[in-house]
Amino acid sequence: MGETIQVYAPATIANVGPGFDILGLCLNTPGDVLEVRIINDKIHRIIDETGTDLPADPAINVSTVAIDALLRHIGSDVRFLIRFIRKIPPGSGIGSSAASSAGAVYGANVLLGKPFKPVDLVPFAMKGEEAASGSAHADNVAPALLGGFTLIRSYNPLDIISIRFPDNLYCTVVHPDIRLATHDSRRILKDKVPLNIAIQQCGNLAGLVTGLSISDFRLIGASLHDVIAEPERAFLIPGYKQVREAAMMAGALGASISGSGPSVFALSSDQETASKAGNEMKQAFNNIGIRCSVFISTVNKTGTTLFHEK
Amino acid sequence: MGETIQVYAPATIANVGPGFDILGLCLNTPGDVLEVRIINDKIHRIIDETGTDLPADPAINVSTVAIDALLRHIGSDVRFLIRFIRKIPPGSGIGSSAASSAGAVYGANVLLGKPFKPVDLVPFAMKGEEAASGSAHADNVAPALLGGFTLIRSYNPLDIISIRFPDNLYCTVVHPDIRLATHDSRRILKDKVPLNIAIQQCGNLAGLVTGLSISDFRLIGASLHDVIAEPERAFLIPGYKQVREAAMMAGALGASISGSGPSVFALSSDQETASKAGNEMKQAFNNIGIRCSVFISTVNKTGTTLFHEK
Repeated sequence: MGETIQVYAPATIANVGPGFDILGLCLNTPGDVLEVRIINDKIHRIIDETGTDLPADPAINVSTVAIDALLRHIGSDVRFLIRFIRKIPPGSGIGSSAASSAGAVYGANVLLGKPFKPVDLVPFAMKGEEAASGSAHADNVAPALLGGFTLIRSYNPLDIISIRFPDNLYCTVVHPDIRLATHDSRRILKDKVPLNIAIQQCGNLAGLVTGLSISDFRLIGASLHDVIAEPERAFLIPGYKQVREAAMMAGALGASISGSGPSVFALSSDQETASKAGNEMKQAFNNIGIRCSVFISTVNKTGTTLFHEK
Repeated sequence: MGETIQVYAPATIANVGPGFDILGLCLNTPGDVLEVRIINDKIHRIIDETGTDLPADPAINVSTVAIDALLRHIGSDVRFLIRFIRKIPPGSGIGSSAASSAGAVYGANVLLGKPFKPVDLVPFAMKGEEAASGSAHADNVAPALLGGFTLIRSYNPLDIISIRFPDNLYCTVVHPDIRLATHDSRRILKDKVPLNIAIQQCGNLAGLVTGLSISDFRLIGASLHDVIAEPERAFLIPGYKQVREAAMMAGALGASISGSGPSVFALSSDQETASKAGNEMKQAFNNIGIRCSVFISTVNKTGTTLFHEK
């Protein structure tokens, strides 16, 4: 029986405002713990004690799909057992599948003697995302593996840029207890966008990464607008407009849909505002009869890490 | 007879790579000199000794259109004489009209006792741009007035962000001796862009401003791609592909169309490469029988300034 490692794989926010498909950030909490060890078997094994309905079949579970991409790359037939202790609600829009993919390839990489740097694990974890949503997007798995804010400057070739950000930036995530399928929220997007809308999105994204890198909170707030995906998707989240408004009234810098939803996030420049925004956003959901969970977190600087070795 | 001031109004590059309509930079050279003084007259007067075919009628000359916007704002009926000593070739794509508008409002503002900060002059100068091209774009006049790289984060409300950039960044501008009307090159753009193209442009622009602000020359070069306007406009400039290729072969970080052309610019990390790129780009135009002028310049940090007072 080989060594068992524990990996902490944090939640992430993708589609950060104007960074649709290309800007993500890593949260300190919530996060999943994955226990990973090498087994002497023909197939990987998955144990999930959290009572989710995610597939236990290693041929389709995102964690083992991601690991298999790594193993194919190095021509290895090592097999792993992965035991999940989940804290990130699946289907919440804060990178549950990304945490599984990122945590799994991170753990496998450690047990194989670290043939890859974390950034080089991103393409393998993207295979897990592809299995989960049909789209090999990187704006959850890149921040999940690397921490901080990551810009996917280009997908082809893959070019991942870490963006500086202020220490005192607080994230509020409100997860309403409703179901939303990621592939549905992708399908409703139009194939083409008006030129002036594309330019607005460019301006806001360039403004956002600049505001983050020079700690200009005015600019961060002014830039946190997604004019491409949010207008199409907002109606999928009941009460979205009121929830966003509640965050702004509480003093948040800005608020938008986390990933493809249903979670809504806000950014604030201090913890008190982040908490207040969380309470007000929760109240706005409650007002229309939707229960929700609230997470307050700073931005995680390290990404996926070893949690504990035994 | 009142005081005469001389204003130096520098050339600018708009549409810097992926920053179509929203990212511009200011050159140290070439630049126009405008002599400005207050006159006791009913209408403004324009003297242009450079032999251009620009309108001398103050009702339609961009410089006085811009000044009139300023005067309307403060309810003034002061009139000005403007004498142009031009070095920026009109119609070249390096902000000739912007220099006229920026220089004129800058000079008028000085003579009126500086009621406005330079950034607050941008909307007036934009009125000049509107008169010149039918589009009140700011990505020439903002860098012309403020210097450096300026991002127009938003047009409504107008939000202009100065972007940090490396000291050792060199610009090569090659101006081919061909005619191109700005409104033609705008008209050929499609009203809509594919979603994936819009996302590519966003990624490249966010990458470019990040690369500039952290002096990452690899990232600057990788990001200097305009996937929206350049593919539509490149064919308007004979030999464009070869000229761009010549810049890259000479070691430039990247190259693209300056403004809406016909000038082509390249960015380099040292003066020697910038000169070599200029020579090679010129040769590529010459090879197909097109004469051209070459300008090598660092990025201007101050923008429009007083040149000399007498």
